[in-house]
Amino acid sequence: MKLKYAVVGTGALGGFYGGMLAHAGNDVHFLFHNDYDFVCKNGLKVDSVLGDFHLRNINAYNNTNQMPKCDVVLVCLKTTNNALLRNILPPLIHSETCVILVQNGLKAERELAEFFPDLSIAGGLAFICSNKVGKGHILHLDYGKITIGSFQKENRELLEQVCKDFITSKVPAEFSSNLKESRWKKLVWNIPYNGLSVVLNTTTEQLMNHTKTYELVRDIMFEVIGAANACGVKIEKGFVQEMLDSTRIMKPYAPSMKLDFDNKRPLEIGAIYSAPLAEAANYGFNMPKVTMLERQLRFIQDSYLK
Amino acid sequence: MKLKYAVVGTGALGGFYGGMLAHAGNDVHFLFHNDYDFVCKNGLKVDSVLGDFHLRNINAYNNTNQMPKCDVVLVCLKTTNNALLRNILPPLIHSETCVILVQNGLKAERELAEFFPDLSIAGGLAFICSNKVGKGHILHLDYGKITIGSFQKENRELLEQVCKDFITSKVPAEFSSNLKESRWKKLVWNIPYNGLSVVLNTTTEQLMNHTKTYELVRDIMFEVIGAANACGVKIEKGFVQEMLDSTRIMKPYAPSMKLDFDNKRPLEIGAIYSAPLAEAANYGFNMPKVTMLERQLRFIQDSYLK
Repeated sequence: MKLKYAVVGTGALGGFYGGMLAHAGNDVHFLFHNDYDFVCKNGLKVDSVLGDFHLRNINAYNNTNQMPKCDVVLVCLKTTNNALLRNILPPLIHSETCVILVQNGLKAERELAEFFPDLSIAGGLAFICSNKVGKGHILHLDYGKITIGSFQKENRELLEQVCKDFITSKVPAEFSSNLKESRWKKLVWNIPYNGLSVVLNTTTEQLMNHTKTYELVRDIMFEVIGAANACGVKIEKGFVQEMLDSTRIMKPYAPSMKLDFDNKRPLEIGAIYSAPLAEAANYGFNMPKVTMLERQLRFIQDSYLK
Repeated sequence: MKLKYAVVGTGALGGFYGGMLAHAGNDVHFLFHNDYDFVCKNGLKVDSVLGDFHLRNINAYNNTNQMPKCDVVLVCLKTTNNALLRNILPPLIHSETCVILVQNGLKAERELAEFFPDLSIAGGLAFICSNKVGKGHILHLDYGKITIGSFQKENRELLEQVCKDFITSKVPAEFSSNLKESRWKKLVWNIPYNGLSVVLNTTTEQLMNHTKTYELVRDIMFEVIGAANACGVKIEKGFVQEMLDSTRIMKPYAPSMKLDFDNKRPLEIGAIYSAPLAEAANYGFNMPKVTMLERQLRFIQDSYLK
């Protein structure tokens, strides 16, 4: 069976993942917002370490009402736009459609399930350095693996098919039998690097090169692991050193929140900070450093938004 | 007995406190650095909420070797310059001289005592909004009280005389019988406001006006009080609300560390952060938020120094 894909939010992530699927011959339908007119004329350009390509004829839309119902919907919006999903998704959905939230943080699937209690919902975690550098133009710098796990309804078979499609399209992909664990593990990286790169206006490389921020990143990682463990998600302490080492050899990279900050966009504070803090607090676990980071970020965001 | 005063470091603090003493007719001798030539020609100008004045003929020096021995030395340098004291002080000192360190933080007296084990040493705490706004020009905006306490050798009688001289000169002054407590109490204010105003590039007013930073300031204050109590210095929790309320009604003010940051000068991280952290650690007390702030400040300072 050949799956029909929708990509909701064709930016750094959606442009890359959807682009790779389409480039390999899959049936992919892309929702654009600001770039719609440009892409209709010029197509979608992906400059990737895996090889550059240009999709001149692309199934582009600026409204989901014009789109076909799809088997798989890859939601690649920022979580700060998730309030839109309630109206955006229905035209794309048939009885078997699975919606995969390729997003950061902890609460997106749960919030979506409140509005769509019968929908097949999954989460996707992108381990990738990718930026949108211009209209219809994605620059994929490093990594690229996507991990997909089920949140609601039995959809493992479909998700494994999606992983196969990705792999056939040269994108490393893996099914996770424990989405909650995968999300917490990603937070171990996201929480220190995203927030500190904004608060200290710097890069992952600079954070790693100064003893004091290296120690701070490390201690925040331990705090996140402590919270995960308190919430019943077992992550070994050794995972911290793994994350530090793999960041050390990463190309100098501005985390997505830093790019949002530089472009004066809303920051994903809710998904990456407030939701894990609330989850940990539910289990009686206190995260003083993450609490402090969340407060600093709220202050910074409010100093330029509205 | 009329006391002879030396002021070492005639800036925002030394210029105000020494200036007030001299203006009231006390015998005061001022050490200048960059402003020496200017002050010899133009005198010292103090614009103060207590009344402006201009000391046209001032005992100005640029080297303590030319200065007389004094009964009281008011050290008003930043703690970041304290390595200089070993060479600066000896010409000023007779057998009864008391050196009062009018400085921030926790460790200055102890460090000085290591080099001068027989010296009469005291600490001074300035509760003041005062800035140096130009060569030989001090702007005193608000408050002004100085608290003085003994650190080493019996010098209470002399310090009470100093307080009287200040009061006669219209400067509120008080002898503290517990310098350690006074220093910790001042840290309750200094630790949150100095650091956060640098890290978030803002003012005390903005920190108070945003719910998240208000909560952060408050929680850091509780952490500092916890550390003080662990170190055997009893401070009531109610002191936090007192500090918050009095800051709320302060004129918008950039803490001294923010001014140092804006002018790309070294920050007093050692005195205000590292020393209290080390002291608390000695007593087995952990300060996660203050630790995080110290690390953020070290990173920021090192990004512009050398």
